[in-house]
Amino acid sequence: MDQNLMEKKISCDIVAQGAFLTWQRWQARLPNGRAAVRDIIVHPGAAAVVAVDEERRICMVRQYRMALERVTDEIPAGKLDAGEAPDACARRELSEETGMDADHLELLTVLDTTPGFCSEAIHIYLATGLHQKQAHADEDEFLNVAFEPFAAVAGRVLRGEITDSKTVAGVLLAGKKLGLL
Amino acid sequence: MDQNLMEKKISCDIVAQGAFLTWQRWQARLPNGRAAVRDIIVHPGAAAVVAVDEERRICMVRQYRMALERVTDEIPAGKLDAGEAPDACARRELSEETGMDADHLELLTVLDTTPGFCSEAIHIYLATGLHQKQAHADEDEFLNVAFEPFAAVAGRVLRGEITDSKTVAGVLLAGKKLGLL
Repeated sequence: MDQNLMEKKISCDIVAQGAFLTWQRWQARLPNGRAAVRDIIVHPGAAAVVAVDEERRICMVRQYRMALERVTDEIPAGKLDAGEAPDACARRELSEETGMDADHLELLTVLDTTPGFCSEAIHIYLATGLHQKQAHADEDEFLNVAFEPFAAVAGRVLRGEITDSKTVAGVLLAGKKLGLL
Repeated sequence: MDQNLMEKKISCDIVAQGAFLTWQRWQARLPNGRAAVRDIIVHPGAAAVVAVDEERRICMVRQYRMALERVTDEIPAGKLDAGEAPDACARRELSEETGMDADHLELLTVLDTTPGFCSEAIHIYLATGLHQKQAHADEDEFLNVAFEPFAAVAGRVLRGEITDSKTVAGVLLAGKKLGLL
């Protein structure tokens, strides 16, 4: 039914390669038969966690983001290691960034952060039944971690004060699921 | 208060340049004084529109996304032209993709799609008071546009069936604002 929309991949050059990103430049054929160039950033994928404790507090991570040149408040998240399952990545990132483990993980959505040019998909989980293990952050990762009232964080999302896409999506989807919105 | 998180930019190489993306490789100094490399994709920014008519239907755009190798359902959106204000971009994209103009635009949020490596920020607007002008899509842009009941689209977002980050955020934020969630 969507045949009128399809683009066909013809050939690909690797423009640049980084530690986890690859820039591919595709020659493509448009539905009208004309040629086009599509620059695609290939990303390994990621997992993120809306971790909510029994007092309806959510775990938030504050960190500096050079791409934005400022500090952001986000849910715990990180890139998939090679061959790693998204739920295992979610548990690993939650443990590394907060020292917590979760009895229950439930998939909220698989977010395509920016489908116009990037393949990144983030598996976002709701984590409940939290209990403390111990934190062991990456040596060169600098984070401030805090549990905040879910309602306060949701309010900041609704007022446009929290702007990270996985956090906006995760907080709103979890809020609906938990009856907290 | 967040001094313990700050990273310092030292120097930058341009790794690659495309029609609208630039790959910068920064040498940086971490809070502990150690050196690090940060690959940053610089993006011009974008605007997106949650367009809701008087019958509580929302305008959705179906298009092929080569980065995902599939068709997606998204709200109307597009990149900022050089020097273009985000609200002007929102009106232009709404007009180009759907042929509609809006009496009212209200900013819902400015979404950072993927702050770990990319500067892209999308201004997401709620558009109401819609009226038809005429469609004039980009010559090489292939879209199917439809108005769908807001409740049906919100249901697809909540079930994880619509996955584009600006659409998930925009639909949920607009739904709360309009009392439709």
